[in-house]
Amino acid sequence: MAAKYKLTYFPIMALGEPIRFLLSYGKIEFEDERCEREKWPSVKESMPFGQMPVLEIDGKKTWQSLAICRYLGKQMGLAGANDWEDLQIDMAIETVTDLRLKIANYWYETDEAQKEKKKEPLFNETLPFLLPRLDNLVKENGGYLANGKLSWADLYFIAVLDYLNTMVGFDLTKDYPNLAELKNKVLEIPAIKEWVDKRPKTDL
Amino acid sequence: MAAKYKLTYFPIMALGEPIRFLLSYGKIEFEDERCEREKWPSVKESMPFGQMPVLEIDGKKTWQSLAICRYLGKQMGLAGANDWEDLQIDMAIETVTDLRLKIANYWYETDEAQKEKKKEPLFNETLPFLLPRLDNLVKENGGYLANGKLSWADLYFIAVLDYLNTMVGFDLTKDYPNLAELKNKVLEIPAIKEWVDKRPKTDL
Repeated sequence: MAAKYKLTYFPIMALGEPIRFLLSYGKIEFEDERCEREKWPSVKESMPFGQMPVLEIDGKKTWQSLAICRYLGKQMGLAGANDWEDLQIDMAIETVTDLRLKIANYWYETDEAQKEKKKEPLFNETLPFLLPRLDNLVKENGGYLANGKLSWADLYFIAVLDYLNTMVGFDLTKDYPNLAELKNKVLEIPAIKEWVDKRPKTDL
Repeated sequence: MAAKYKLTYFPIMALGEPIRFLLSYGKIEFEDERCEREKWPSVKESMPFGQMPVLEIDGKKTWQSLAICRYLGKQMGLAGANDWEDLQIDMAIETVTDLRLKIANYWYETDEAQKEKKKEPLFNETLPFLLPRLDNLVKENGGYLANGKLSWADLYFIAVLDYLNTMVGFDLTKDYPNLAELKNKVLEIPAIKEWVDKRPKTDL
């Protein structure tokens, strides 16, 4: 892993943070380029499909947060031991992604009336449906999202959790002991703790 | 691959069709259970995270269309030759997923005024931005989404294309020769052609 890594993303956690978590976990130095919103329109064209995060690996641009994290996870021994285990990891992380998309659909709504309309089903139906099931998945998997052991999905989930929590306005794990325990476990990994202590502080 | 496969999904193509394509490509017999909308509320609770498609493999429920297709792709020799190639496949298919989500965000909007408001940016900004780039990705990859060879991402994309086309009201590949050629190439694979010829005909 002597490759050179440069992450370009907005100056927030959100979808860049799982990449930062995984690189930190692997004790890999990386350039953490944070592109201010004002600069984005002039940068957008140079990004594949006009999106960030983009991770340059030895100058080659890679994009899509989940794709990048799956790749990094493999390099760091955080993938499954076989195809079936990888499937369990992917099922879990796509479920977390569904949760994220449902929350984001509410949070990024710019029409205030529409946002208010989306609030009730999100908070009274979607979250109470998904969160106990996610908590149970972690319980069934011995305290992890999959396979009874730490995987890149756990790092991804906990890395985006602050972002999700800011969007909903509370800690999603507060009533879910297995999710709360997973959060603590990941945040106590020394390399992750070190990163979290030194990273720029942002809400999202 | 003597496992037993049972797919449960709505009686449409949409996110079930990539699974049907991949199983058909592998010449794997599968039970194609189509759950009518009226029955869904009583079935929902029995599905992991209350969603379909669900693919039972030897009685074990698996969920999340992308996760399942990545797994099936590996079984059928349609994954990358190494981690880097798998990353290229994942980047491409997540890009297709972004396209799908943006179209679905418009199509599934139930508020007519809101739907009308979403139409202009989708058709005049999002599609004209994404489609040429996707077409170019296929061009750069020798006629495939990644790595200059057929992968599960190609089958996935072409399997959901009818669904996307119905939602936008035209063939997304019509002005994009590389996408159109990819479509033809996948639909001409004998096992895919056989499936498409015999499958139940639906719009979505």
